[in-house]
Amino acid sequence: MSFSFANVNGRAALLDGGRVYDIGRISHESVSADPMIAISQLDELRELAAHLNDHDDDGPLNEAALGAPVPRPRNSFGIGLNYKDHAEESNMELPAIPVVFSKYPSCISGPFDQVDLRATQGDYEAELVVAIGRTARDVAAEDSWSYVAGLMVGQDISDRELQLGARPPQFGLGKSRDTYGPIGPVLVSPDSFADADNLGITCDVNGERRQDARTSSLIFDVSFLVSYLSSVLTLVPGDLIFTGTPAGVGMADGRFLKPGDVVTTSIEGIGTMKNVCQ
Amino acid sequence: MSFSFANVNGRAALLDGGRVYDIGRISHESVSADPMIAISQLDELRELAAHLNDHDDDGPLNEAALGAPVPRPRNSFGIGLNYKDHAEESNMELPAIPVVFSKYPSCISGPFDQVDLRATQGDYEAELVVAIGRTARDVAAEDSWSYVAGLMVGQDISDRELQLGARPPQFGLGKSRDTYGPIGPVLVSPDSFADADNLGITCDVNGERRQDARTSSLIFDVSFLVSYLSSVLTLVPGDLIFTGTPAGVGMADGRFLKPGDVVTTSIEGIGTMKNVCQ
Repeated sequence: MSFSFANVNGRAALLDGGRVYDIGRISHESVSADPMIAISQLDELRELAAHLNDHDDDGPLNEAALGAPVPRPRNSFGIGLNYKDHAEESNMELPAIPVVFSKYPSCISGPFDQVDLRATQGDYEAELVVAIGRTARDVAAEDSWSYVAGLMVGQDISDRELQLGARPPQFGLGKSRDTYGPIGPVLVSPDSFADADNLGITCDVNGERRQDARTSSLIFDVSFLVSYLSSVLTLVPGDLIFTGTPAGVGMADGRFLKPGDVVTTSIEGIGTMKNVCQ
Repeated sequence: MSFSFANVNGRAALLDGGRVYDIGRISHESVSADPMIAISQLDELRELAAHLNDHDDDGPLNEAALGAPVPRPRNSFGIGLNYKDHAEESNMELPAIPVVFSKYPSCISGPFDQVDLRATQGDYEAELVVAIGRTARDVAAEDSWSYVAGLMVGQDISDRELQLGARPPQFGLGKSRDTYGPIGPVLVSPDSFADADNLGITCDVNGERRQDARTSSLIFDVSFLVSYLSSVLTLVPGDLIFTGTPAGVGMADGRFLKPGDVVTTSIEGIGTMKNVCQ
């Protein structure tokens, strides 16, 4: 059974038809109210989702109550240059292996949280974000999806001056200022999609469409990335992979983010995040 | 009051004269038994350390019981090329700003744990490791030390093939295989040292001295690093900084680590770790 999982006021919840079901309550605490623990209880989440209608709900979803579905990842990976058109606009070579940097865990924020720019060259990057649901080591690519708890929308907000202004580049720090990692609005299980490898992804800034692509254009797809990372280190539930951004970032035409800008990021079948810059 | 802090069988402990004092027990649980929480209770740790003799101890220290003093950092930073002689032996330019990569939290291991190489070009890097003790944002360099809980010995074990074998370099992944981040044996508060910026650091492989330097040779010192990182993101208690390694790594003369090798790493005033490769 597919499910749509959220962090509502810090508590794990399932969503259905715009209604919130508190996981701790409906499971009589047999599934954790802590999103970081609940995310690892995949079988139990599926079982709960299959019988949501047996329970009363906790009311309609209020966007302001949504936090990051996975608020405290142990490891959080970013993948650079993972769409051909973005590598070209960045004047960088196509990588032979995934370019992996750290989207440091402290930057993770909620889907409607403000972005605290603290940068003159702040930039947006719409990304598909993968959350791991089962401990994964040396996973074959064909088995990767069974280790994925779900998919989210994400923004890989970047301070280009910090990232690229000195040698060597500082991918990790430049993309990890506080609030630079909004994720959400919900986490959707992979079996919710007709084709989880082919989702429309867009980013608008102040209502103007700036990025518009499909995740089928990823150079290294979700299956490959989970397999590759698991060959290096053990992935655990809640680990995140920001899979990279398509063309259209502000750096390409010099239109960086400024205070007051509204960044709206959507992925087909998942939802929309809205983040206002300050 | 200075203190020496350890993780003994998963519980926070203070050490004195080779004896263990369980922090949860002697504080009547007013200081956490969880090392990750206790590390943030600096004032309480100092107070406990000042009155250790009022308490019975829990017996002599057994090295086999020691885990990583900070087992689950939120952010874990590595600094590259931070000793002039190591940058030269690596044929790399001296950096103008710190080269920051992720020593991913999943690689952290104990001071006497085995290193699971899984690499034909595994290498050692003796390093001074800083643990943050207070939430730090935009800290001035002259105030940095007051945000440091303590110092540890560390090994920044590296898979050179994964790190440098393809373009671009993979500093984060190449230095973050499981077990690649032993730290310990204890965490020593900064006021324990006559000069915390000038400590002898050595690494022996199978009893042969391979690295021998002083932390006074760091290009970017502890004060600078804490200040710099805190200007980018908020540091929290338990965040780690691996400060970089001096000359003498195996890569310099092609003598990489192999199964059975014994890596012994020491820092003056802190202690000695011993890690056997498999």
